[in-house]
Amino acid sequence: MKPRIAVSIGDPNGIGPEIALRAHEQIQKICHPLYFAGYDLLEEAAEKLELEIPENFDHRSPAPAVPIRPGIVSADAGAYSFESFRKGVEAVVDEECHALVTLPIHKEAWMRANIPYKGHTDALRDFFKRDAIMMLGCEKLYVALFTEHIPLKEVPGAIDREKLVKFLLDFQKETGADRVAVLGLNPHAGDHGVLGNEEDIIEEAIEEANRFGDIFHGPMVPDIAFSPKMRQNFRYFVAMYHDQGLGPLKALYFDESVNVSLNLPIVRTSVDHGTAFDIAYMPGRELNLLSYINAINAAIEIKTARDQRA
Amino acid sequence: MKPRIAVSIGDPNGIGPEIALRAHEQIQKICHPLYFAGYDLLEEAAEKLELEIPENFDHRSPAPAVPIRPGIVSADAGAYSFESFRKGVEAVVDEECHALVTLPIHKEAWMRANIPYKGHTDALRDFFKRDAIMMLGCEKLYVALFTEHIPLKEVPGAIDREKLVKFLLDFQKETGADRVAVLGLNPHAGDHGVLGNEEDIIEEAIEEANRFGDIFHGPMVPDIAFSPKMRQNFRYFVAMYHDQGLGPLKALYFDESVNVSLNLPIVRTSVDHGTAFDIAYMPGRELNLLSYINAINAAIEIKTARDQRA
Repeated sequence: MKPRIAVSIGDPNGIGPEIALRAHEQIQKICHPLYFAGYDLLEEAAEKLELEIPENFDHRSPAPAVPIRPGIVSADAGAYSFESFRKGVEAVVDEECHALVTLPIHKEAWMRANIPYKGHTDALRDFFKRDAIMMLGCEKLYVALFTEHIPLKEVPGAIDREKLVKFLLDFQKETGADRVAVLGLNPHAGDHGVLGNEEDIIEEAIEEANRFGDIFHGPMVPDIAFSPKMRQNFRYFVAMYHDQGLGPLKALYFDESVNVSLNLPIVRTSVDHGTAFDIAYMPGRELNLLSYINAINAAIEIKTARDQRA
Repeated sequence: MKPRIAVSIGDPNGIGPEIALRAHEQIQKICHPLYFAGYDLLEEAAEKLELEIPENFDHRSPAPAVPIRPGIVSADAGAYSFESFRKGVEAVVDEECHALVTLPIHKEAWMRANIPYKGHTDALRDFFKRDAIMMLGCEKLYVALFTEHIPLKEVPGAIDREKLVKFLLDFQKETGADRVAVLGLNPHAGDHGVLGNEEDIIEEAIEEANRFGDIFHGPMVPDIAFSPKMRQNFRYFVAMYHDQGLGPLKALYFDESVNVSLNLPIVRTSVDHGTAFDIAYMPGRELNLLSYINAINAAIEIKTARDQRA
């Protein structure tokens, strides 16, 4: 039987609804999707895009419909996208669905709707009171983020030995990786203290995390870690902050990457792009669906691997 | 007549001497190199590498010879590499040579030799009392660094409107670029203040620098700036800090990139890699000379363009 995948629709004013409508035919070959969006919204989206709602498009309304305003940041769209996500999570917790795939929300719309989370991963962490790990990438290269959506100036103070040890061990347990590259924080990984010394903490954490085996390597020089030669040796990377890991990843594999939440009771993956307000609701425009399709595939794979381990 | 290029030899314990010896035959076709290294050192290097010193290998001793200790960080090697660099600079200032190409030095060796600079660019800035601009890349993608070799925690405080305006205008003048992507500092370029607000300063600086024309674009979302689509639109990027720009650059173009110092009275380029102590003095081992050869080519091109502008 095909796995049942909960799909949250994302911000109604962005490209989420379009992705769901356009990719349905392809993804229903590998799974049975349940979309968390109401009929009114889907009908309005389809009309604006000059599309039909596909056959067998199972959906569930998460909240009263909001009018679609393409490309507009709004509190009502933020609240809707949050409810779609929350109901999707519930469906997986209640074992109605096997895994959750999320379409892009707009962080500022969430803020305007007074939703106290900076994004999906942040919310999942609170729902489950677990240190969710955010990992992005594709088969060729996966990057986990030790810190995520915080201002750059808060990053150096967030490099904590104990937390990093736990992060590394959790990450390894979830991925089963046998070699993990752990990045330094500073240029040239601090150049032996000349350019910063947070690498001392990272080095201690690596040493401690390696007590069960020689898994973690580093602290790696950040700007060299993703060079072609290094990528021959490593497929899994731990970055100390958002852009350190995602800059190189997106330079290399922008269109095919997905976002995976590890270390949670449920399996959740996501597209690795935003709401794309600038191109939302342009009928006839070609959308790249690869990240979404890869996210569906990754959700199925991770769920299958997890069930086999259990 | 072929241009005359001063080549500083780099740290004697690293791969600098080997690159000079191995690439000479190829580069002497396009320039007349003058190597700042003494005969004793070159002879010892050639012997360790089972090479001959090539014919027409003009060189000048910058300091009394030091014994080669492959892969060792040492004060005497640091001092030698600094003298080689300093004499190379002098030769260009005195118009004996047209441009300078530097082979890699070791920052910690400089520190042990009490050389008060973190690297070549830092030293050039002091020699000439000018705000040298460090740009790395290759024909397909050039990245200039607004901050360079400082600890990450010092970066946010270094984002200064006036300095950034001057940096942008100097950069444009030197490169002649008609479109420049300027990166934000924080994840998602601050997401409208949710994840940091240094982007306000960057935005003001861009606006001010654009008073003579619509050249500078941004603040760009840092992890998306180097995605394939963005790179179709931009060839020149200004990064706020070292790894923000060099992580993506080296993920994409590690072997072919060079380092260019802009905004100085002399033209100086460099290889875009370090001393590679781990593979120094291994006879028979294949070294990739592309970055060095591109550095020689870039030095000649920039000098030619500069002379034509003058």
